[in-house]
Amino acid sequence: MTRVRLDLFSSLDGRTSTAGTSPESPMGQDWGSLTAGHVTTRTFRERVFGDPTSGTTGVDDSYAAAHFVGVGAEIMGAAMFGLHAFPDDPDWKGWWGDQPPFGTPVYVLTHAASRPPIPMAGGTTFHFRSTSVQDVLAEATEAAGGLDVRVGGGISTARAFLRAGLVDDLHVMIAPVVLDRGTRLWQDLRGLELTHAVTTEVSDSGTIHVTFTRQSAA
Amino acid sequence: MTRVRLDLFSSLDGRTSTAGTSPESPMGQDWGSLTAGHVTTRTFRERVFGDPTSGTTGVDDSYAAAHFVGVGAEIMGAAMFGLHAFPDDPDWKGWWGDQPPFGTPVYVLTHAASRPPIPMAGGTTFHFRSTSVQDVLAEATEAAGGLDVRVGGGISTARAFLRAGLVDDLHVMIAPVVLDRGTRLWQDLRGLELTHAVTTEVSDSGTIHVTFTRQSAA
Repeated sequence: MTRVRLDLFSSLDGRTSTAGTSPESPMGQDWGSLTAGHVTTRTFRERVFGDPTSGTTGVDDSYAAAHFVGVGAEIMGAAMFGLHAFPDDPDWKGWWGDQPPFGTPVYVLTHAASRPPIPMAGGTTFHFRSTSVQDVLAEATEAAGGLDVRVGGGISTARAFLRAGLVDDLHVMIAPVVLDRGTRLWQDLRGLELTHAVTTEVSDSGTIHVTFTRQSAA
Repeated sequence: MTRVRLDLFSSLDGRTSTAGTSPESPMGQDWGSLTAGHVTTRTFRERVFGDPTSGTTGVDDSYAAAHFVGVGAEIMGAAMFGLHAFPDDPDWKGWWGDQPPFGTPVYVLTHAASRPPIPMAGGTTFHFRSTSVQDVLAEATEAAGGLDVRVGGGISTARAFLRAGLVDDLHVMIAPVVLDRGTRLWQDLRGLELTHAVTTEVSDSGTIHVTFTRQSAA
């Protein structure tokens, strides 16, 4: 049974992404403090930087490793693909490098849906769609072949799926910092703990891992 | 060396207190879900209800017990004293009962500062002041005789001390719920983790305990 999964970063005050974006800081000036616990894990360093020899191996790494298991298709927004960096270059393949760390079909939500698919090394193929979240999820679920669908971000795409009630498994990594700026992750999500079971756990980095899990239908 | 301490309840989205207040729900309709982990501790049940025979004894209780140790004076807002319930009754002694759980001088910030002090059983005396947060803190520090000063709430009083940079030890109990309404605890507090050391810990109730500790001057 395919589940829809979403991992997000947050501050203590529920801010995620990305005030102060610029060409030098495409994810925003606060991104580093939100993600410090995650990007220092062994899993992240191996998957994204190709370095399996360093990184933390505790609670943060357990969640990071789970992030990569059992995913059959990915959905992301145009900004996360990197479409806005070179919107007029038909040869631009996004900023995930020659071998993106997905290894699955990736559905990029964009108004520029006439772009042809881009097959990449390592099993990733980028597809461009301008449909509703429901329709792109149906297509991704079909493509996932019984594995899970991951909603990758950015935050506006993630929140569209959350607000529509489409996320089965939400994992939030709360960094022990107060940002007081950036998008409000939790807005419009009152009572999420009533439809999903909640767990909380902390890691050596001080990151608080919160999961919301919807019960599968029997 | 007197330290200024503050304990607060929050939701995952940084909301504290108290939307939906009414005579039946003076702390607001969401207060119960914010405080569930705390009010079920053995310490709370003994201190507030006089029942030492029940309650949880884990992480939540350790923080609850620490709350009551080493405090020499308390500061709170008029609403927390209960002044707004019967503002015109000079005999009203607040809603903390005949023997309030403080056992120290309590400085109540109010425009009705002409009220005489109210000595209560158990060592609590309520004093009414309309001074600045700095001035009432100076008086409370003097009264504390080397013990700590606790800022008791409510949230507007607490935030006044936080925004003024007067809190040395902040303890936030984050309940694993999303409220999406109520006062924003963290607003205007960007970078609190830069002036204070942060710890995070979770309890069996799912409550996330976050502490911010300012280093004492050497």
